[in-house]
Amino acid sequence: MITHKDMGLVSEGFTEGQLKSMKGDIGVGHVRYSTAGASTRENAQPLVLNYVKGTLALSHNGNLINAGELRHDLEYTGAIFQTTIDSEVIAYHIARERLKVGTVEEAVQRATRRMKGAYSLVVMSPRKLIGARDPYGFRPLCIGKRDHSYIITSETCALDTIGAEFVRDVLPGEVVTINGDGEILSDMTNAISADRHGRCVFEYIYFSRMDSRFDGVSVYDSRIMAGRFLARDSHVDADLVVGVPESGNAAALGYSMESGLPYGVAFMKNSYVGRTFIKPKQSSREQSVRVKLNVIREAVQGKRIIMIDDSIVRGTTCNLIVNMLKEAGAAEVHVRISSPPFLWPCYFGTDIPVREQLIAYNRTVEEIRQLIGADSLGYLQVNRLEELSRGLPICKGCFTGHYPLDPPKEDIRGDYER
Amino acid sequence: MITHKDMGLVSEGFTEGQLKSMKGDIGVGHVRYSTAGASTRENAQPLVLNYVKGTLALSHNGNLINAGELRHDLEYTGAIFQTTIDSEVIAYHIARERLKVGTVEEAVQRATRRMKGAYSLVVMSPRKLIGARDPYGFRPLCIGKRDHSYIITSETCALDTIGAEFVRDVLPGEVVTINGDGEILSDMTNAISADRHGRCVFEYIYFSRMDSRFDGVSVYDSRIMAGRFLARDSHVDADLVVGVPESGNAAALGYSMESGLPYGVAFMKNSYVGRTFIKPKQSSREQSVRVKLNVIREAVQGKRIIMIDDSIVRGTTCNLIVNMLKEAGAAEVHVRISSPPFLWPCYFGTDIPVREQLIAYNRTVEEIRQLIGADSLGYLQVNRLEELSRGLPICKGCFTGHYPLDPPKEDIRGDYER
Amino acid sequence: MITHKDMGLVSEGFTEGQLKSMKGDIGVGHVRYSTAGASTRENAQPLVLNYVKGTLALSHNGNLINAGELRHDLEYTGAIFQTTIDSEVIAYHIARERLKVGTVEEAVQRATRRMKGAYSLVVMSPRKLIGARDPYGFRPLCIGKRDHSYIITSETCALDTIGAEFVRDVLPGEVVTINGDGEILSDMTNAISADRHGRCVFEYIYFSRMDSRFDGVSVYDSRIMAGRFLARDSHVDADLVVGVPESGNAAALGYSMESGLPYGVAFMKNSYVGRTFIKPKQSSREQSVRVKLNVIREAVQGKRIIMIDDSIVRGTTCNLIVNMLKEAGAAEVHVRISSPPFLWPCYFGTDIPVREQLIAYNRTVEEIRQLIGADSLGYLQVNRLEELSRGLPICKGCFTGHYPLDPPKEDIRGDYER
Amino acid sequence: MITHKDMGLVSEGFTEGQLKSMKGDIGVGHVRYSTAGASTRENAQPLVLNYVKGTLALSHNGNLINAGELRHDLEYTGAIFQTTIDSEVIAYHIARERLKVGTVEEAVQRATRRMKGAYSLVVMSPRKLIGARDPYGFRPLCIGKRDHSYIITSETCALDTIGAEFVRDVLPGEVVTINGDGEILSDMTNAISADRHGRCVFEYIYFSRMDSRFDGVSVYDSRIMAGRFLARDSHVDADLVVGVPESGNAAALGYSMESGLPYGVAFMKNSYVGRTFIKPKQSSREQSVRVKLNVIREAVQGKRIIMIDDSIVRGTTCNLIVNMLKEAGAAEVHVRISSPPFLWPCYFGTDIPVREQLIAYNRTVEEIRQLIGADSLGYLQVNRLEELSRGLPICKGCFTGHYPLDPPKEDIRGDYER
Repeated sequence: MITHKDMGLVSEGFTEGQLKSMKGDIGVGHVRYSTAGASTRENAQPLVLNYVKGTLALSHNGNLINAGELRHDLEYTGAIFQTTIDSEVIAYHIARERLKVGTVEEAVQRATRRMKGAYSLVVMSPRKLIGARDPYGFRPLCIGKRDHSYIITSETCALDTIGAEFVRDVLPGEVVTINGDGEILSDMTNAISADRHGRCVFEYIYFSRMDSRFDGVSVYDSRIMAGRFLARDSHVDADLVVGVPESGNAAALGYSMESGLPYGVAFMKNSYVGRTFIKPKQSSREQSVRVKLNVIREAVQGKRIIMIDDSIVRGTTCNLIVNMLKEAGAAEVHVRISSPPFLWPCYFGTDIPVREQLIAYNRTVEEIRQLIGADSLGYLQVNRLEELSRGLPICKGCFTGHYPLDPPKEDIRGDYER
Repeated sequence: MITHKDMGLVSEGFTEGQLKSMKGDIGVGHVRYSTAGASTRENAQPLVLNYVKGTLALSHNGNLINAGELRHDLEYTGAIFQTTIDSEVIAYHIARERLKVGTVEEAVQRATRRMKGAYSLVVMSPRKLIGARDPYGFRPLCIGKRDHSYIITSETCALDTIGAEFVRDVLPGEVVTINGDGEILSDMTNAISADRHGRCVFEYIYFSRMDSRFDGVSVYDSRIMAGRFLARDSHVDADLVVGVPESGNAAALGYSMESGLPYGVAFMKNSYVGRTFIKPKQSSREQSVRVKLNVIREAVQGKRIIMIDDSIVRGTTCNLIVNMLKEAGAAEVHVRISSPPFLWPCYFGTDIPVREQLIAYNRTVEEIRQLIGADSLGYLQVNRLEELSRGLPICKGCFTGHYPLDPPKEDIRGDYER
Repeated sequence: MITHKDMGLVSEGFTEGQLKSMKGDIGVGHVRYSTAGASTRENAQPLVLNYVKGTLALSHNGNLINAGELRHDLEYTGAIFQTTIDSEVIAYHIARERLKVGTVEEAVQRATRRMKGAYSLVVMSPRKLIGARDPYGFRPLCIGKRDHSYIITSETCALDTIGAEFVRDVLPGEVVTINGDGEILSDMTNAISADRHGRCVFEYIYFSRMDSRFDGVSVYDSRIMAGRFLARDSHVDADLVVGVPESGNAAALGYSMESGLPYGVAFMKNSYVGRTFIKPKQSSREQSVRVKLNVIREAVQGKRIIMIDDSIVRGTTCNLIVNMLKEAGAAEVHVRISSPPFLWPCYFGTDIPVREQLIAYNRTVEEIRQLIGADSLGYLQVNRLEELSRGLPICKGCFTGHYPLDPPKEDIRGDYER
Repeated sequence: MITHKDMGLVSEGFTEGQLKSMKGDIGVGHVRYSTAGASTRENAQPLVLNYVKGTLALSHNGNLINAGELRHDLEYTGAIFQTTIDSEVIAYHIARERLKVGTVEEAVQRATRRMKGAYSLVVMSPRKLIGARDPYGFRPLCIGKRDHSYIITSETCALDTIGAEFVRDVLPGEVVTINGDGEILSDMTNAISADRHGRCVFEYIYFSRMDSRFDGVSVYDSRIMAGRFLARDSHVDADLVVGVPESGNAAALGYSMESGLPYGVAFMKNSYVGRTFIKPKQSSREQSVRVKLNVIREAVQGKRIIMIDDSIVRGTTCNLIVNMLKEAGAAEVHVRISSPPFLWPCYFGTDIPVREQLIAYNRTVEEIRQLIGADSLGYLQVNRLEELSRGLPICKGCFTGHYPLDPPKEDIRGDYER
């Protein structure tokens, strides 16, 4: 196996020469957005390792809630850990199960049975590509095909990008194996009944790309629908409906469709400001928002604006943007949020700060409205969430505190970090 | 003067440490999008130089049409050139004029009088900041202020970004000087009568950021207006109006406003694909478009689409996007372009290929429509262009072949390149 | 623990900023010259890991001959390996032993008992620094002190460099622990009788820096002595004694001292040609030697030269250098080698090619002399080797085929490489 | 012309890919050791420029003493300067002369006639390679040949390195042209009578590589001779003669030859410490010397040492090294310097600090001896200098204050720096 991992964007880490030198029939990649496990080179995925049967490479999306316990148990049998990512715990279990069973896919199935939490996993052995999704189906995973090659990927939009066709979603609890003969084998041993599933509803609201379908439901449709619900449930009269780019735009369009109010563009987003943006010295949060987002004065002047965003976390950015609209001459700013208020932690891969930092914690909607300086404020109603997934069972724990499986007693996020 | 120049994005070329080490009261920067002069480190601006009165730094936006002649003349007096950018020619003339006059701003004024073409120029001496705009006003240049500091910049949006207020545009033909006492001095010697001005209309259509104002006219307004004209002049019935991101969106919004047809979002743009994108091996142009742009199937399926883009150059990309919409199930695709057909070269800073490569060259609109595979095709009418600038005199040479000043006999673009 | 590892020279991998950010009371570093385990980022040391009792960092110099077996055994208990370096095998054993005993130093002692081969090991726990040397003492390891800090390092010259004083060598088979109270604890459980020791004699001849002392014996003295033995045992009359820089110089000086023949300098070494040297296109080995080494014609012209080098491996470089001397006008070139002929593999950390590539394999000295084009050739006699270590028991297996412990049945070098 | 310039070592700045992409029949390179002109990317050579007749590339070794005046004069005709290196002044004059004469070589000849000071110059036009040496011949320049290619280079050792043969030295005042037909044309217009020549004697003592010949005189021979003179003129009885590496070694050998005292090696030099060495925090000068140079205790203990170095500048390093020898147990340390004391500035390319920092300024040899802590101190006598060049006229201005041409009234070094 040839390995190349680096920090930064894919286009920075992989030169044309490097790509050319990585020849072969099978491969696995990963782009990491770290929620647990520090953002260091050691923690970069895929994890590549040797075990009793040769070489394996693993990529993992999600978050295990019993990773700490599993690590602990493994350490008590003499295991050593060179990263702080969950994948290493999974890899150990695969290696140990492999001693007992005849194939790597069986080992994957038996190993994942011990994992609690969210995992969409791709495992590559020298001759097989294996995908596994946790029984609750928290995160997406799907299969595509181009010519005679199969692809296992998180989002369907990745298939479009390379001109591959969508074959099907990996099912919650399923382990699929693509073997050397180009067959897709399925193992449903770990599956649970569909009503216990818990797809992350925030995938529909924010995480997934709008052009993806998550378990057959269009993310674009979900967001349009969220906007429509906002229009139905907390309508206000106004001159213009605008989204906070990029994630608020689809819901704004839905609101406009439902309400008949005209859709507009109020913000210009700086597409050159990214990860490596250098903060000005007196880097107030305000400065950094202004560099990323500018109001188009002509679009909003004298107008009553309905501004739609996907969520409010601490409220500071929302307050800044409302102020920017008002400075630019907006007559009124009505904020509508295409999700309910964040009130609880997520243990399954969404990076939500501690409760005390959440603006919605211990505050009424009216109190939040005052803090962000809006003329009115409305959230998506919790009972609308199921409709976003067209009835597919979801996890809405961050809004309700009720999770598909028992959360850990204490906040385990960042457990192995310093 | 402390100099730092590099290749790549600003965020790649300037580390926090480097910025910190560049202390002082006055500075000049430049981000180059090369139309003439190869994209090499030597050609990076600002040009920093020593001359008889000390140090100067120059940044130039635009294109001189007599740079070749001026270089030639200078060479015949023994001048040497270390770059292939016009700024070096301008610098020589400033240095020579400075021998005859008492101030650097006079030298700038006298030097620029010899320059034919488009230039928005910023010159920094150890104690003064000078801005100069060519008499035709091809490219924007404006003055802003934050606290006690003045800023001269191409676009007004840069002022918003840093929280500075807009003071005024530098006028066509004006040389403004900000001296050590914080005064703005103006020299209008080079000015010509306003009716001979020739602002580049493509700044309104495409170049400038939508949140900028170019000589007092909102770029956003211009694009909305362009969309409205398309709706008025070449309307077609449809279910949805969409823009090709980003530049087509505002005109699509205008079309929607004027026609009453619903505005929609049909494309997902990959914001991680930039300059450094590594082309796949069999890098068809198609592959590269697909990575950058994906159609949201749910938004377009079964719908009659009006797709608005700012221009068609060779037509290949437009054809690909039309096909992608049709593959995604669009019932009809009507293409509307918020500018007239490109038919002539630009000598003033817009990078247009040779006529033979232009799809509109020697073709009727119907022929073009067939080539791009659209169900109908409409361009902005040439007589609408003046309205985009609210009556301000413009250059529309690339559409009409008539330029505010006589173009060079031969194509001088890329003259000093290999 | 803060980790920083990189490829290249120390001065390339560690910027001043990085060094400043690595604060603490205790640290471990490593510069790798790979003999087994590919030269990749993954294999860079120190190995940093978490285990049941927290964090450990390991640096290892040497080569285990049973690493393959140990890996195999570990894999059969479910272990996974992310590198191909021996240190990972050692780390696993430390982690497992730590479950049975009360301190990390005991775990190190018990773990190393299973290791066969050469190891000089430094292990860092959050509060202790542990050094361990294999029972045969193949490679050096010593303790130094500066102010209140202790240093464990391979060579004594490192202590001089930082102004530390030499405390003592770590003994063969010893595990030393420097605890938080600044005490040095010693554990001799793994020690064997001194007559079974096997210090690598090639440390004296080539590896160690001339200004180091290896187990109390000056490397400089050993090399002077090697030169003296050559003068005694295979003298030839000549005008000048020269060394092939750098490693041949001290032996040349010894030869000169013993013989009374004048010492000279025949070669100029290019100190800018290093690791990153770019080979010319038709990169003959000759070209690359010429760039590194040039003959000083004036020093050798018309002279009978005794040229001393530390070893001959394949013979090609030696032949080139002899030719260069002759081209420069040397009347005669007599080659003397300050070690016996390489005839056997090394399993303990010296990078010797397979027997078939060794010039001395199946050849008489006279045959070798002809191949390298020398007028005479003499090697150090095997019976002189013990005198180089002043009687300390040594390993001279690469010259004799007799090793302090049974070598593996097959050549295990590079076992886990592709 | 294809240009590539970078900061750092050649092996860092030129990748194999870059070298491969630079194809052609003719080229010019430069490695800069800056004495005047800051060490910045802008000042990197060769200087590549366009002028009336096309493209030129220039590389310059040396220092002009009238560069400031010439720049000034040029600026008063409207010239602009983008670097602070002398080459730019030379380039201007070549460009201006080229307007008056028919060939570039004539222009070079006429241009250099105005230059006062030291210059060894290589000029490349698209079809010719031109070398020029100042009339005094301060710095070396020579011609070599390999197959059908000619090489113009500073030192003869560069020819050996690439397997080229030495053709001849470029003469003081000569302009040589290698034209497209492979002919060497010579222009001696600028030559002066040989007795006015002024080769830099410090080239023999320190600058040139020991394996070079400067105007036919072996540098190795010169250094051996310098050592012999020291033995003759300021002998002292001792046990060992050692050089301070690298530059003191040859003179030490000469001393040993002449005196019959044994030559030895006292120091180990760290070959990995280079330009990029990171200084420890409390970076005393002592620390930095210790990392670079370590004493071999066994070689010097109890011995009376004669330590030979090429020069003493400020005396601090010399004092440190003497102390290191004494700490290592040397019974006596006698310092001998293979050049006379530095007393005057150099205007021709040797980087000597201001007089007040020179240890020999206003001090007797005895006072210097006390400052460096040596048991005795001897310098090369000024009257020996001519013998180092075998009678060729030399410049010994830094030792005597008498220069081959009138020095500038004031210290012009670093004139254009900040």
